[in-house]
Amino acid sequence: MSKHKVLMARREDPEVEAILKDAPSEVDIYFPAPGEALDDHLADAEIIYGGIREADLPKAKSLRWVQQPSAGVEGTMYPAFKASDVILTNCQKLYGLQISEHAFALLLSLTRSIPTQLEFMKEKHWERVPCVELAGMTMGILGLGGIGRAIAARAKAFELKVIAVDPEPMDKPDCVDELGGLDWLSEFMTQSNLVMVCCPSTPQTHKLLSHDQFNLLPDGSYLVNVSRGKVIDEEAMIAALRSGKLAGAGLDVTYTEPCPPDSPLWTEPNVILTSHSAGASQHMRARAMRLFVDNLHRYVKGEALVNLVDKQKGY
Amino acid sequence: MSKHKVLMARREDPEVEAILKDAPSEVDIYFPAPGEALDDHLADAEIIYGGIREADLPKAKSLRWVQQPSAGVEGTMYPAFKASDVILTNCQKLYGLQISEHAFALLLSLTRSIPTQLEFMKEKHWERVPCVELAGMTMGILGLGGIGRAIAARAKAFELKVIAVDPEPMDKPDCVDELGGLDWLSEFMTQSNLVMVCCPSTPQTHKLLSHDQFNLLPDGSYLVNVSRGKVIDEEAMIAALRSGKLAGAGLDVTYTEPCPPDSPLWTEPNVILTSHSAGASQHMRARAMRLFVDNLHRYVKGEALVNLVDKQKGY
Repeated sequence: MSKHKVLMARREDPEVEAILKDAPSEVDIYFPAPGEALDDHLADAEIIYGGIREADLPKAKSLRWVQQPSAGVEGTMYPAFKASDVILTNCQKLYGLQISEHAFALLLSLTRSIPTQLEFMKEKHWERVPCVELAGMTMGILGLGGIGRAIAARAKAFELKVIAVDPEPMDKPDCVDELGGLDWLSEFMTQSNLVMVCCPSTPQTHKLLSHDQFNLLPDGSYLVNVSRGKVIDEEAMIAALRSGKLAGAGLDVTYTEPCPPDSPLWTEPNVILTSHSAGASQHMRARAMRLFVDNLHRYVKGEALVNLVDKQKGY
Repeated sequence: MSKHKVLMARREDPEVEAILKDAPSEVDIYFPAPGEALDDHLADAEIIYGGIREADLPKAKSLRWVQQPSAGVEGTMYPAFKASDVILTNCQKLYGLQISEHAFALLLSLTRSIPTQLEFMKEKHWERVPCVELAGMTMGILGLGGIGRAIAARAKAFELKVIAVDPEPMDKPDCVDELGGLDWLSEFMTQSNLVMVCCPSTPQTHKLLSHDQFNLLPDGSYLVNVSRGKVIDEEAMIAALRSGKLAGAGLDVTYTEPCPPDSPLWTEPNVILTSHSAGASQHMRARAMRLFVDNLHRYVKGEALVNLVDKQKGY
């Protein structure tokens, strides 16, 4: 029987690729040289580690499975891919640890006046400025997947009330005090002092946080977005910052990335931008490769793959 | 019976002083005008809210109790006060919430590269930079009082191993994995990726973190100090930053405060200074005043006061 051909469309550091030594013997892994055009290898690749661009999909006649080494899949959800039989797995659930740390870094930097103190340092200026204590506030988590749950668990330790909105029916985890569907969003906004955006970008979530929703927030709330910028109507968010509805916004993501030079977010007071780095971790590449190796074993045995993306839902 | 005279040597905002309406009827509270010299009122004050300077102590002939609206008491531990019969209560245990939030703000700002991203914003530059994931690391907490315990509880939610050193015999709380006395400090340093300093300034803790101790740390550790700068030998800390033993230091406090203009800490890479603001909270003044009112009730009933400072130990 011929082996399953794997194309490493994304190269990693040698110590990370070394994890592939644990791949099953039934696969044959091809490593293109950095910068090498993939065209010659697309035709007989059955499995791709990385992604498949729209222009390349017709060439990939043997393709059955793409393992994407990241979480958000909207870049692959073009009609031809959605209509194809190719299955897609992603790295959802591998980001909870570092992204929840990043979310708290953004939130606490705002509430503890870290940007102001960093400016003071340049002038060798020592001055205590007001800080906001979070304990006792209500955190509203939009999207209760792996990242939302990791944030919720940490929030309970910070003595916050935690509420969440998620479109999927699910049991309420212990670290969440109240959970509702999308129809509960408006009530959720009226209660949330701290809004944490952790949901994927889908047609359903596009500009979900609108003028109307921001207007429901308690005055002086904080917003953190560690998933996708397209979930937020940025004009509405900036208006909320200027009106005082929002006391601050910590944004790892923006509607367009990189954030365009003419975006007011670069200079808006009480905004922190972090260049889509919430997923960064010294462990991430190895963790994604281990998932791939585990999924390869499942694949050759005909078992269900982990982190299978529902192409219709888009996550 | 004459009333117990209370001198408000520190004035607060009207809504905070309004909490004194709940004080027992057996006390007579005097509010000096802002800036008024206290001399005329010291002689018959039995209770002072605020502090008593060394020069004023001989004038305070009726003084029996000082309620200090902050935690660290080293400023009052001059020999005449220590030798006197005046008792001192402080605000220990009222700082756990906000100071633990501040400690995580410092730590996570360092590990998630917040200062670098804030500089990028000025240039409208969007670039993902490496970040350090904390989960799985060992946090070493030096001083397991109210602040240390609040930090430990949050650290467990961040999936850290938590170890602690405290000179007092105490039961190990569930949120701490291993606890030792000061004789365990060296072993504690060899294990700690993240050192959190939360202990008071006493002769015993003076420059406790020395060259020898920093040298025991794993390479690339982080240090956060939210209690007292005098616990750290700053020359040793700066050497550890330069050698890579420390990957970063988040310091709310320095050996001398304000941090002197010639201190290298102002410009040292990977250092964040926050001007002794870890205790800042929108709730703190009211919380301290409520403690004072509660203690006044205990005082007039002859009950033991809460937060009594042991003058020999200095905390």
